[in-house]
Amino acid sequence: MGQLVIVGTVAFDAIETPFGKTDKILGGAATYIGLSAAQFNVDSAIVSVVGNDFPQEYLDLLSERNIDISGLEIVNDGKTFFWSGRYHFVMNTRDTLATELNVLADFNPIVPEAYKKAEVVMLGNLHPLVQLGVIEQMENPKLTILDTMNFWMDNALEDLHKVIAKVDVITINDEEARQLTGEYSLVTAAQKIFALGPKFVVIKKGEHGALLFHKQHIFSAPALPLKSVFDPTGAGDTFAGGFAGYLAKTNDFTFENMKTAIIYGSALASFCVEEFGTKRLEKVTDSELKTRLQQFKELTTFNIDLS
Amino acid sequence: MGQLVIVGTVAFDAIETPFGKTDKILGGAATYIGLSAAQFNVDSAIVSVVGNDFPQEYLDLLSERNIDISGLEIVNDGKTFFWSGRYHFVMNTRDTLATELNVLADFNPIVPEAYKKAEVVMLGNLHPLVQLGVIEQMENPKLTILDTMNFWMDNALEDLHKVIAKVDVITINDEEARQLTGEYSLVTAAQKIFALGPKFVVIKKGEHGALLFHKQHIFSAPALPLKSVFDPTGAGDTFAGGFAGYLAKTNDFTFENMKTAIIYGSALASFCVEEFGTKRLEKVTDSELKTRLQQFKELTTFNIDLS
Repeated sequence: MGQLVIVGTVAFDAIETPFGKTDKILGGAATYIGLSAAQFNVDSAIVSVVGNDFPQEYLDLLSERNIDISGLEIVNDGKTFFWSGRYHFVMNTRDTLATELNVLADFNPIVPEAYKKAEVVMLGNLHPLVQLGVIEQMENPKLTILDTMNFWMDNALEDLHKVIAKVDVITINDEEARQLTGEYSLVTAAQKIFALGPKFVVIKKGEHGALLFHKQHIFSAPALPLKSVFDPTGAGDTFAGGFAGYLAKTNDFTFENMKTAIIYGSALASFCVEEFGTKRLEKVTDSELKTRLQQFKELTTFNIDLS
Repeated sequence: MGQLVIVGTVAFDAIETPFGKTDKILGGAATYIGLSAAQFNVDSAIVSVVGNDFPQEYLDLLSERNIDISGLEIVNDGKTFFWSGRYHFVMNTRDTLATELNVLADFNPIVPEAYKKAEVVMLGNLHPLVQLGVIEQMENPKLTILDTMNFWMDNALEDLHKVIAKVDVITINDEEARQLTGEYSLVTAAQKIFALGPKFVVIKKGEHGALLFHKQHIFSAPALPLKSVFDPTGAGDTFAGGFAGYLAKTNDFTFENMKTAIIYGSALASFCVEEFGTKRLEKVTDSELKTRLQQFKELTTFNIDLS
């Protein structure tokens, strides 16, 4: 089993969906990634920043799951990053109601000594220069995974390219892959991204699943068709966390094993959307996960005689 | 091996894509379905209508593939149905430039005597009353498959419901499933469609593949990720034709076998879009099809230890 370093936001979220709304609850990319990877009992560390308004209860929630928080800086007299959003009935569209960077504005990430030799680095969505800062502190990781989004393509493209050049795997959604490359075909987009640095490209398609590209190989993972999506917040981060967590646990970074990692990520994401915020993710049991993986197996298995 | 009756349009199409344009070429739902099902050498019959402007060469093209055309009425002094459309760079959107019903306006379908006992009926996209007329002439088919579209939901919903009540399988796209049921979740939409009659619901998602629903079971088939789509015309009909053709050939109408049929349909559709109109479909070899099925297998196979 390898170690896993996670950088990303740790935040307060306030969420509105057609099914209800929340006050400030636990959120942030690193939080979802950490909780998702914790399903594999990996030795992980979150590198992030919060204010002193961040409750001890949330810190405990992370620590209890074997997530090291010595790299989670707590800024005195600082306020935790806050995001607020409203989802429409069609859950793939949302309005951002508020984004308050607060302590995140001056964040200088510090990777704890004990994790500088970690095998796997998961760069959650955050300013590319912060992600770059983490990469520079690591001592020869075996696998670096980047998650990013269109916001950084619009506002920090040059910095983003610097990060992309240094990672092994990138996870982005289909529209972002098209924006980054100017190519409509995802096959051609993935090939153009290979030329930027990454050897593996994961394209997230939400309710349509995900595609993994490596050299000439393609793997297509379905999403589990759901009766309802209660709250999509964090689903992409949960996917990335399950992917990174499984890879750190198995210490096997082949295309074959990444396919399995994508199914784990997809299964964990399918839990994430069932309740507000991290609530459902916090209590997924091994037995529930196994049942859901079985559903993915049934969803995709067919017999065809090619003799 | 069972017999297959196909009803649907036989037409002239004029197509514009970002890659070029055609004059009037062979088109129509029944044409694509027939050519796709012909890959399985099934004994099939097309029930449709054309004008006397329809070239002998196109009739020969169908006959040569073991497609019976005694139910393809040729109206003297009539003109063949004509459709013209232009595809945008993003190929899932298109403008219809012309629709001339011509002989289709008064079409009264007649199923040839020799095919009234056919095991499989494929109702291609057409007015629901014409589809109903074919159902009424059949003597106890084992499987009736309906393909339809939003146009009939907008303009002939009551008639469409009459057809839906009488079929075993319906194939529609995701937006149409939502329109028909008023449900956003495709799982819930499929359940509502079960209540209307069909035991199997196939939801086509274009570049995102297809879902098959039956009772509590779901199968998710990917689409083959493609570098370019030259001309999407007929891809849905080709999918339906491959599905129906494989089922007629195997005479096995279980959920398990339908999964395989969907992969065959998807593989044939992936050829269809490679050239204008029916050109590519006309010349798919068994060996090419086998290679593509192997690609679907690789695309979807993963190992997961659930012990």
